[in-house]
Amino acid sequence: MFHSFITRHWFAPEAITIWSDTNTVQAWLDVEVALAQSQAELGMIPENVVSAIAGACRSDRLDFGRLSVDIAHAQHPFVPVLKQLEALAGEPAAGYIHWGATTQNIFDTATALQMRQSHRLTIDALDLLDSTLADLARTHKGTLQAGRTHGQHALPTTFGYKALGWLDEIRRTRNRLNSRIGDSFVVSMGGAIGTFAAMGTRGPAVAAGVGRRLGLDVATLPLRASFDRQADYLTALALLAQIAEKVAHDVVFLQRTEVAELEEAFHHGKMGSSTMAQKRNPSTALLLISLCRLLTARVPLASWSMPRMDEGDSSATNVTDLVVPELAILGVSIARTLLKLCSGLVVHADRMATNLELTRGQIMSEAIMMRLSTSVGRHHAHEMLYEAAQRATEDRLSLVDAISQQDPRAGEIAAQIVPDNYLGAVQQLIVDGEALDESSGS
Amino acid sequence: MFHSFITRHWFAPEAITIWSDTNTVQAWLDVEVALAQSQAELGMIPENVVSAIAGACRSDRLDFGRLSVDIAHAQHPFVPVLKQLEALAGEPAAGYIHWGATTQNIFDTATALQMRQSHRLTIDALDLLDSTLADLARTHKGTLQAGRTHGQHALPTTFGYKALGWLDEIRRTRNRLNSRIGDSFVVSMGGAIGTFAAMGTRGPAVAAGVGRRLGLDVATLPLRASFDRQADYLTALALLAQIAEKVAHDVVFLQRTEVAELEEAFHHGKMGSSTMAQKRNPSTALLLISLCRLLTARVPLASWSMPRMDEGDSSATNVTDLVVPELAILGVSIARTLLKLCSGLVVHADRMATNLELTRGQIMSEAIMMRLSTSVGRHHAHEMLYEAAQRATEDRLSLVDAISQQDPRAGEIAAQIVPDNYLGAVQQLIVDGEALDESSGS
Amino acid sequence: MFHSFITRHWFAPEAITIWSDTNTVQAWLDVEVALAQSQAELGMIPENVVSAIAGACRSDRLDFGRLSVDIAHAQHPFVPVLKQLEALAGEPAAGYIHWGATTQNIFDTATALQMRQSHRLTIDALDLLDSTLADLARTHKGTLQAGRTHGQHALPTTFGYKALGWLDEIRRTRNRLNSRIGDSFVVSMGGAIGTFAAMGTRGPAVAAGVGRRLGLDVATLPLRASFDRQADYLTALALLAQIAEKVAHDVVFLQRTEVAELEEAFHHGKMGSSTMAQKRNPSTALLLISLCRLLTARVPLASWSMPRMDEGDSSATNVTDLVVPELAILGVSIARTLLKLCSGLVVHADRMATNLELTRGQIMSEAIMMRLSTSVGRHHAHEMLYEAAQRATEDRLSLVDAISQQDPRAGEIAAQIVPDNYLGAVQQLIVDGEALDESSGS
Amino acid sequence: MFHSFITRHWFAPEAITIWSDTNTVQAWLDVEVALAQSQAELGMIPENVVSAIAGACRSDRLDFGRLSVDIAHAQHPFVPVLKQLEALAGEPAAGYIHWGATTQNIFDTATALQMRQSHRLTIDALDLLDSTLADLARTHKGTLQAGRTHGQHALPTTFGYKALGWLDEIRRTRNRLNSRIGDSFVVSMGGAIGTFAAMGTRGPAVAAGVGRRLGLDVATLPLRASFDRQADYLTALALLAQIAEKVAHDVVFLQRTEVAELEEAFHHGKMGSSTMAQKRNPSTALLLISLCRLLTARVPLASWSMPRMDEGDSSATNVTDLVVPELAILGVSIARTLLKLCSGLVVHADRMATNLELTRGQIMSEAIMMRLSTSVGRHHAHEMLYEAAQRATEDRLSLVDAISQQDPRAGEIAAQIVPDNYLGAVQQLIVDGEALDESSGS
Repeated sequence: MFHSFITRHWFAPEAITIWSDTNTVQAWLDVEVALAQSQAELGMIPENVVSAIAGACRSDRLDFGRLSVDIAHAQHPFVPVLKQLEALAGEPAAGYIHWGATTQNIFDTATALQMRQSHRLTIDALDLLDSTLADLARTHKGTLQAGRTHGQHALPTTFGYKALGWLDEIRRTRNRLNSRIGDSFVVSMGGAIGTFAAMGTRGPAVAAGVGRRLGLDVATLPLRASFDRQADYLTALALLAQIAEKVAHDVVFLQRTEVAELEEAFHHGKMGSSTMAQKRNPSTALLLISLCRLLTARVPLASWSMPRMDEGDSSATNVTDLVVPELAILGVSIARTLLKLCSGLVVHADRMATNLELTRGQIMSEAIMMRLSTSVGRHHAHEMLYEAAQRATEDRLSLVDAISQQDPRAGEIAAQIVPDNYLGAVQQLIVDGEALDESSGS
Repeated sequence: MFHSFITRHWFAPEAITIWSDTNTVQAWLDVEVALAQSQAELGMIPENVVSAIAGACRSDRLDFGRLSVDIAHAQHPFVPVLKQLEALAGEPAAGYIHWGATTQNIFDTATALQMRQSHRLTIDALDLLDSTLADLARTHKGTLQAGRTHGQHALPTTFGYKALGWLDEIRRTRNRLNSRIGDSFVVSMGGAIGTFAAMGTRGPAVAAGVGRRLGLDVATLPLRASFDRQADYLTALALLAQIAEKVAHDVVFLQRTEVAELEEAFHHGKMGSSTMAQKRNPSTALLLISLCRLLTARVPLASWSMPRMDEGDSSATNVTDLVVPELAILGVSIARTLLKLCSGLVVHADRMATNLELTRGQIMSEAIMMRLSTSVGRHHAHEMLYEAAQRATEDRLSLVDAISQQDPRAGEIAAQIVPDNYLGAVQQLIVDGEALDESSGS
Repeated sequence: MFHSFITRHWFAPEAITIWSDTNTVQAWLDVEVALAQSQAELGMIPENVVSAIAGACRSDRLDFGRLSVDIAHAQHPFVPVLKQLEALAGEPAAGYIHWGATTQNIFDTATALQMRQSHRLTIDALDLLDSTLADLARTHKGTLQAGRTHGQHALPTTFGYKALGWLDEIRRTRNRLNSRIGDSFVVSMGGAIGTFAAMGTRGPAVAAGVGRRLGLDVATLPLRASFDRQADYLTALALLAQIAEKVAHDVVFLQRTEVAELEEAFHHGKMGSSTMAQKRNPSTALLLISLCRLLTARVPLASWSMPRMDEGDSSATNVTDLVVPELAILGVSIARTLLKLCSGLVVHADRMATNLELTRGQIMSEAIMMRLSTSVGRHHAHEMLYEAAQRATEDRLSLVDAISQQDPRAGEIAAQIVPDNYLGAVQQLIVDGEALDESSGS
Repeated sequence: MFHSFITRHWFAPEAITIWSDTNTVQAWLDVEVALAQSQAELGMIPENVVSAIAGACRSDRLDFGRLSVDIAHAQHPFVPVLKQLEALAGEPAAGYIHWGATTQNIFDTATALQMRQSHRLTIDALDLLDSTLADLARTHKGTLQAGRTHGQHALPTTFGYKALGWLDEIRRTRNRLNSRIGDSFVVSMGGAIGTFAAMGTRGPAVAAGVGRRLGLDVATLPLRASFDRQADYLTALALLAQIAEKVAHDVVFLQRTEVAELEEAFHHGKMGSSTMAQKRNPSTALLLISLCRLLTARVPLASWSMPRMDEGDSSATNVTDLVVPELAILGVSIARTLLKLCSGLVVHADRMATNLELTRGQIMSEAIMMRLSTSVGRHHAHEMLYEAAQRATEDRLSLVDAISQQDPRAGEIAAQIVPDNYLGAVQQLIVDGEALDESSGS
């Protein structure tokens, strides 16, 4: 999907690059270098082989065509890489490459490196999104809009408060991702079964050295059968997808022909249809929903990969070796597409105001009930309003008229209540939200 | 969820009853009786013990309180039942109960019996739904409505055609369920590992006898490690849920305050909210969506239960013993809730007509393009319409006016095109749909 | 995953080719040609434009570089293709391309074409697998092996019967796939909202013409909002994955160092590890498990794409346009990997025999119980065996010795019972299975 | 599943009680009392109605039979409760119950209360599990066992290290749950659309008062359309399930008849089978796997409930109202079952030692390679070992003999290497693990 010319423009190109074959192999080689350096420092391998190893560990020196053939033959993804490295490094360095490590150590640590880079792109997009949404919230603090529950007009709110609501969830998820990246993607250098068998008691020091060199935290127990850390970060990506999907659905609905309160950015030349010339579809929002589902569906692959046989299990690591890059790319792409969607939104405040009138005042029924409650009690007021609302609906009356027919004094009271009076704490919450923005933003 | 007074009214009570403890135990006992009868017929157990066994096999004779305690102690769900049956049957019959069978044989065959009953309820509801939707299609064959793609008005259609579309999917799924029930839930009587070890070469004849007595098909290979048959039926239930969810979403949208083309049945006393007296929520449609998700989420439990260790694996059967009844009850409840939703629909044809005007004619742009295509070619016509539509949107003109400004003759042609002329094959397809109904309906 | 040199050898290359960009675009063009031919035949477009359209519709004539740029700009996957086709066809043909169709019609019909090809590859592999497994069943009809339930030795069986069990599930799934391919992937040519708006009452005849030309069935109602047919086939692929996963788990376990009853094909040069020279891993079986999970996780993307907004919804079709090819490629790859696994299996019959002795006779306890049942009743026999088995385990006795200590005559009877006597209907079922093979095989 | 006598013993009874109808309703009422108290404190409702409200808010005073009927009629789960409360409270208190709140506020806050209680049970079990596993790790620090990867013997390890590995994952998840419970389940008291409409700017103070009284944190933005907090905790439960499943699979495998290194607790009277008297199944481990899947399958219901229409959406809350209790009960039950499993484990150290010999020394091949590496280089050593291992396997030699045939001096070196020398940092990591235990344990 990342390579087809039909769909590749859906995805963030920098993220695709991070996880390209070339970059992946280079990340492996970077880990091998850091390993050799750390071991030389501890006197486990000769100091003088390090530069030869480092010199060999450049992906542009490998023969990728032969690698491809050899990997398929050996049915092992790394032994052919090692063989080329050994040839490049020459004797005696060849004998000290990959000392005491197992393939999965290299792969997992390289993944941690690449995931840091992907994470940075995701966070950058979310930080920009933060200011975009904070702006929307501020600008539309008082832009009246119908609040809706269960698909029906409920109470008045403002569009700024809706934008703040989106922001609230997005911030929490940005914080989750930030707080987990360090623990979730770590150096794991424990050898074939995670005991540091071939490095002995110096193993933890080697791992620490690798971590220091690569800027990564280190797993206390370097178990290959553990994947809970990574899964914890990846499930936070799933939360991001779900939040993005909520925003996208809101936009799709609010752009509906009948609603028309929001509109996606449009440019001349954008095509809605091969036959219907008039179409201005919310195509970014719909694409965003698609990306979110593509991510959401993949997250179980990460969690199913947690129960691993014994000390190591390629049925699980085959899957995570494939799906972690996909999730990372999808995460960046979702953050960016959400940013694009929100940055380009056209807000039709006039239409929001018009739509607020659609129920002929029924949207104010709770407000009226609360006002009447102070004299007759909440429960009696609710009954009166229930009857009035039914009549208003059946006879196509305004709610105030229906109330007046029942009880003229109540009608008078009701007539004074307007949406602006019934916004609760909305203004204050938006002001507080801005403050939050300043303190916790990127 | 089936027992809480808060939620049990969401579910079909007859379906809950089919899968009650009492009925489940009785189904087990019915299988034991059929087994004993079949074995006596073949001379494997004495003819004269059958009536004692049949007499014991009545769930009202069992002590459920003690069963509950003993099951927890033995950590086995059936040995305590056997012990009570043996006591009730007395000697020598006690020695011939459950001859050559294993617990899972009894459970699987009993499940097949109960699933047949559940299936009948599901199909009955779908058959009633078939006529309901066929009526809607017929009645509203010509009721004009905006067809929408990607959330935007696209072309005109009729509400009858939409109803026929719902029906089309539902019929296919009814047929899938009907065609799979027989193969999916069968007699499986092969003993501990599915070899008929304790019955020898007469095993297949015993299984056939049980099938004949219970009205069930028989598994050729009675393997306990096989669950693909059942999973095949259960995934068809998942299709039903997805189809029902589509209909529910359509209704929720079409009842939106801004759209108001459809409305769910409402009765005085139905409450939309504890505070907003006016609310008439599409609560049946929303509940239906919830039920669909509850079912959909459970279907993977069935498929994950297919890969079973070796010849038998309680980690899988524990799950299916629980989830098959839940899926069955949800299936019936979804079919019934969908029926309730569709039967009660109020159609606001006037509002459909009004909404069709919302784009000031842009909904006819493809129709106009096709008409102009015959003179200038499809591609040039598309370009002209694209420009006209953009201008109409920006200047709030009708599409015909925007075209006329560009090309007065084209404007004249455009002005003659009305939704009624551009319904394609809708009428004919609805007539054919009715015919289909008569031939394939229940 | 299909393109990285690290993983592409996991997948069937012919399947990847079927779904390459070039072949996908060609499939679109084939549909356009069939559409033009059908419309010319019905007099809807001039007969003399057909050859120009057909001449333009060759993917090697398109400029893929420009397409890629234009698709990203138009944010539409097909309008840029149309523009190139129009230029290639020249006037007047340009004006008659894609007459009355919408993009999704072309895509869905092209997908049907490609899916037929993928399906053929899957079925071919399953047919070869059928004979492989039938051979295994026949050859090992009498090869004794421990039958296991819940991870413990249960009763004796034969390896041939286990192979027949695998075959039984695989055959059913092959038949499901075969019976669904025709109905699931069909011509859908109803235009923008599935009403044949732009073709009028001749629409169904056009669709029939396209179907006849492409060898595809035709959807009665050509609704873009319907995806149940496709989902039905794709869930059958999920059943295939689950069955394959069961076989793979069986092999992984039976190759365990402690069990060693089966072994995967091994060739000199195959590497189990970069450090552990001795490793002969069941890497094909483990890869198969991975492939199965990659497929299984994607199937919900298909079913979540069933509930579509109104008459068309790109949030769903974006997903299915991506995931259907992935599922198709995974389906073929699973079938082939399963074939490779089963074809290469080395069967260690001697080790099966040795393992059968591990319980010192306890695996025969049911057999002994059934024999004793005829004199003392099933329930008393069960109690005696339960006590004897506990004692045998605690005192590390053979089961026969433990019985003899309790009851010497029972011990004598027990001593005569050997695995060969307690295979139930296994031999006969295998013979019947072969017969089945001949009648229903490819 | 929690009520059937067949399965209820699978689940923690205290957890079922926490979420019983009676306790759920009482939790609702506790929230109503805290709301009234907070509002009286702020002068929003009269001080003197509070005691009447508190007096009415006792679930034993409600008529549950009538509630059940009225809920089904009103199709609303809370209005009937309110009506009974109003009758019990009498005038004027009746008019001040539920002031400015909406049903979902009450439900969500009550859920937070019940979730705290469930969480406590889960954590208590995990704390006991922590000491159980720390004991196992300490006791078996030096108990040699084969380490396995991809189902094949790899290197030696100790059983204590395996137990420490289980503990490592479990601790992390306990910490995740502990760190999320506060933020995930909070007071949400913002009224119909989360704007505090009916409480105005005092709304946040009311929410704070409720939080203080109930011991809960408070949502800054009280949005009904937000569910990411809860989903974050629930996905951590999913991690618990996956970790538990890993442990369970390890036990099932290690209890396999062929392996027999571990054994579940067994008591006389526990039944493995209705027919096979000898069976000692790992039934607790298998049940644990089942529970884990039941939980895992439900977590998507929580995440799918995040994208909610607009300001409130019962299609989502219907689902979460049902599934959160189920997840909570499953979480406790999994923690307890895992505790039961680990507490009862019988460790067969002798069998672990015997199994370590199964490969006739091949399990030491990496150790030998590393030793030879220092003289000939890692890569040449690997080649020598690869050849020797192949020959050892084919000719059924010990690895040392195979090496000696190739190179007698290498053989001598190889002969000196024993598992005890190749445990890497295992001992030290276990000692450190104990230290960790003391510092971070409950």
